[in-house]
Amino acid sequence: MKIAIAQFNPTVGDIDGNLNKVLTVMKNTSKDKMDLIIFSELFICGYPPKDLLVKSWFINKCEVAVKKIIEFTKQNKGPGVIIGSPIRSNNNYGKGLFNSALLIGKGKIIFQYNKVLLPNYDVFDEERYFDSGEEIEVVKYKGEKLGITVCEDVWNNPKIFKGKKIYKKDPLKILSSKGATTVINISASPYSINKETMRRKIIDELISKYDFNFIYINQVGGNDELIFDGQSRVINNKKKLISIFPSLIEKVEIVDLNENEEIAYQPINKIVSIYEALIMGVKDYFLKCGFEKAVIGLSGGIDSAVTCVLAKEALGSENIIGITMPSVYSSIGSIKDSAKLAENLKIKFDIIPINVIFQQYLKSLKPMFKNLPENTAEENIQARIRGNILMGISNKFGYIVLSTGNKSELAVGYCTLYGDMSGGLSVISDLPKTLVYEVAKYINRKEEIIPNEIINKPPSAELKPDQFDQDTLPPYEILDKILHFYIEEDYSIEDIINTGIDEEVVLSTINKVIKNEYKRYQAAPGLKITEKAFGFGRRIPIAAKYF
Amino acid sequence: MKIAIAQFNPTVGDIDGNLNKVLTVMKNTSKDKMDLIIFSELFICGYPPKDLLVKSWFINKCEVAVKKIIEFTKQNKGPGVIIGSPIRSNNNYGKGLFNSALLIGKGKIIFQYNKVLLPNYDVFDEERYFDSGEEIEVVKYKGEKLGITVCEDVWNNPKIFKGKKIYKKDPLKILSSKGATTVINISASPYSINKETMRRKIIDELISKYDFNFIYINQVGGNDELIFDGQSRVINNKKKLISIFPSLIEKVEIVDLNENEEIAYQPINKIVSIYEALIMGVKDYFLKCGFEKAVIGLSGGIDSAVTCVLAKEALGSENIIGITMPSVYSSIGSIKDSAKLAENLKIKFDIIPINVIFQQYLKSLKPMFKNLPENTAEENIQARIRGNILMGISNKFGYIVLSTGNKSELAVGYCTLYGDMSGGLSVISDLPKTLVYEVAKYINRKEEIIPNEIINKPPSAELKPDQFDQDTLPPYEILDKILHFYIEEDYSIEDIINTGIDEEVVLSTINKVIKNEYKRYQAAPGLKITEKAFGFGRRIPIAAKYF
Repeated sequence: MKIAIAQFNPTVGDIDGNLNKVLTVMKNTSKDKMDLIIFSELFICGYPPKDLLVKSWFINKCEVAVKKIIEFTKQNKGPGVIIGSPIRSNNNYGKGLFNSALLIGKGKIIFQYNKVLLPNYDVFDEERYFDSGEEIEVVKYKGEKLGITVCEDVWNNPKIFKGKKIYKKDPLKILSSKGATTVINISASPYSINKETMRRKIIDELISKYDFNFIYINQVGGNDELIFDGQSRVINNKKKLISIFPSLIEKVEIVDLNENEEIAYQPINKIVSIYEALIMGVKDYFLKCGFEKAVIGLSGGIDSAVTCVLAKEALGSENIIGITMPSVYSSIGSIKDSAKLAENLKIKFDIIPINVIFQQYLKSLKPMFKNLPENTAEENIQARIRGNILMGISNKFGYIVLSTGNKSELAVGYCTLYGDMSGGLSVISDLPKTLVYEVAKYINRKEEIIPNEIINKPPSAELKPDQFDQDTLPPYEILDKILHFYIEEDYSIEDIINTGIDEEVVLSTINKVIKNEYKRYQAAPGLKITEKAFGFGRRIPIAAKYF
Repeated sequence: MKIAIAQFNPTVGDIDGNLNKVLTVMKNTSKDKMDLIIFSELFICGYPPKDLLVKSWFINKCEVAVKKIIEFTKQNKGPGVIIGSPIRSNNNYGKGLFNSALLIGKGKIIFQYNKVLLPNYDVFDEERYFDSGEEIEVVKYKGEKLGITVCEDVWNNPKIFKGKKIYKKDPLKILSSKGATTVINISASPYSINKETMRRKIIDELISKYDFNFIYINQVGGNDELIFDGQSRVINNKKKLISIFPSLIEKVEIVDLNENEEIAYQPINKIVSIYEALIMGVKDYFLKCGFEKAVIGLSGGIDSAVTCVLAKEALGSENIIGITMPSVYSSIGSIKDSAKLAENLKIKFDIIPINVIFQQYLKSLKPMFKNLPENTAEENIQARIRGNILMGISNKFGYIVLSTGNKSELAVGYCTLYGDMSGGLSVISDLPKTLVYEVAKYINRKEEIIPNEIINKPPSAELKPDQFDQDTLPPYEILDKILHFYIEEDYSIEDIINTGIDEEVVLSTINKVIKNEYKRYQAAPGLKITEKAFGFGRRIPIAAKYF
């Protein structure tokens, strides 16, 4: 079989645009004597469509698009198409919708497979929208027995779920028992640091168990918090990897299942993959929101520097403006370092000092604050002045503010709501501080893009005299360990202490994490790169007591 | 049977505190020769515990609490207890957790029922955490055949779901066929405007169909966005309402199923129910977050006035401070009206003008803004100055800022992110503007609490000269209709136009709703009172294209 695999970047909700991509591939490959063209999961509406799926008019629009594809295969007499779309169910109970993979050809739907295993954890809400498919059948097509599956259907492996077997059914086992010669898996599987290693392990395992050709198609692109990395691939029934698609890049490739030349698997370095995923995340957020330019507050610290580099790579130097907003507590070094960064990146750069505005706030608040000692209130006022200035520029010129906070500070609330937390997108909010340093080093691998002074100075919020992060926080190596255990691994406090970290440090850290849920509730969407990011996939009550 | 029904207000996560409430009732009723004491759904951990349920240590703590109740029934030889708790499953697949109702007595778990129908729509995520129970059995207890159910189990009625039958199983039908003489439903069913009418309709229907006694126990209290209204009730097998609990109030009542005196059902007026629910929502948010005092920006408009009255009712005059922050565009009337409101409410009141600060921003931004005409950028800067002042006061004195925006303006983005949207809790964010007026009228039912000037003046943001809401928005009666159709009823644009509203008005309104998803993503949690509130129960992508 000769198959065109379309690893594409759909826009959520843009049914016309996504359909156009489908029809264009169908036209362009018509002369290639293909047997099949394959698109990814829910390609018609983009993934994840979230609550657009509960709107009847939205499903109607998807159905119209499917009809247009059917129509096209009638006129064209070309190859069959496998594509994902939400399809209404005929059952007289249930949510009334399936997450389906359709095999379309010769003017009709030849076969419909409805996703059986519906992920409903972390960022996934599929049981909110879909009924689970009940039939798992193969379909004869051009001499093959195709087993068509959708994403999670092939991931019924306890290794993914910390040893837990969360699904009863195993579609692969059933398809194999029914004689599937080729299994196709259309996916929308978002990037996270260890995802590709996990994917490879699981695919290796299933390939070792079964004798079918295995075709895996994943979408690419950023959709709000999620970044889809593609890396679609084909492994033939001789267990040879005969095609692997690039990470994060749209591509249509024609694969012949009879091809026998094995391709060497090239794992991508972890830091490189993070770096490139974040750039894609920024790029698509702007593109899909209809914006071009970003404004970033440059503090002279490493977080804003890394954010700025990523934004420049995503949007181009000409579309970035860096603003440094020194207060009396800002070191001269910070301003100089920010200016140097801007120069290195060839971005527009401006200085807007905040002290006069700050003094005016203090004067206006004096009748209320009286002679109370300065504390975080005054620190936050400065951060919020900066937020207001950036948002003012954003509103005036139509830029998006990029928020620069990292995961460690967001976790313990070492950030100001409506201040430095302001922004349309939070670029590195899922990177613990220690990881931010690693990315910075990678950025500087060839030349000094981020001034070394920024990387080497001790981290400081510069909101009061001689302030350093480590005055109030444990060293980042320890902090990040605690946070990893608590947030990503769901360890209990006792278990964390049992790893050997000082009890008092653990307790005060977890206390801060819990106390700052309210800030994160109002945080900008942040690009997800770990197994557990703050935001949509982590749902913690605020008015609660569990510490 | 003599049954004590505990309509209580658990705190989410506070397992020790909730357990204490249980043990106290068990002690206090021990002399009353009870047969049974009943608590609400997931009472051990409070509802909704959200992602605390995926933490193994949290489930362990719930299990310990259950063991303490078991222990207590052993020592006490008192009545049995029915209570909700998350309980691990023994299945070797699935999520591994049930939402269970336990019948505990004589030192053991006599019977365990696992919730079968798991709501997974709107604010409910139960399929994220729980496996559906598979057995639906009655249990013989003190001469009765008890059918124990959990919340949604008795709501398998298409009337709730716009005619859709979303569940296949009907636990009530099965329990009835197995001879249940008394059905107990332990619930955590949040308030919304029409919920009680719906509840009554559904209960009437099931009572007309079946011949058992029906005992419904609901929790009370506010938990973040959700307000639980209680209204627990008992209907005997002669179809007589023999007990109904008050709305929103904690109460333990002893009910005898042999009691035959019918109680008159007193429906609560819609506006009264909203008013009281919101007060409960504010009160519990503060209590459960560990705060006492609120600061509110008083603009002289109706939204901040209504918010202020509700806060005063929830927290007491002595715990509220109103701040008016006039700009050059504020009318003298607005300041006077706010002062009068504060006087009427006997709350602390202060005036902090923002113009000097605003001028300083303009001066600082002049090198960037140059001579560009003033627009929303300058308007938003003023709103954000106010946000900064309120947050400064909040940080200095440990108050929570209450956000005052209504649903209509939040829908179309007629509000400033990090400006008037700032706050720990949004009190009236689920009230369309037209409903805000109705609540204001109710507040003034006996005397002028909100100055009539505030109610009668045309709504204005007062962010530029002679600005009125209706310069850029359609009349609120029309706006609220469009928003209701689009947000609550999921109408398509065509369907809304077909109701007879001007096409251009519909299009520009929906366009605004979609464009402002990004603001709402970062909005404070808001108290839910309609079928579809912004926030947790409405999940819409931002970087998307569907208009």
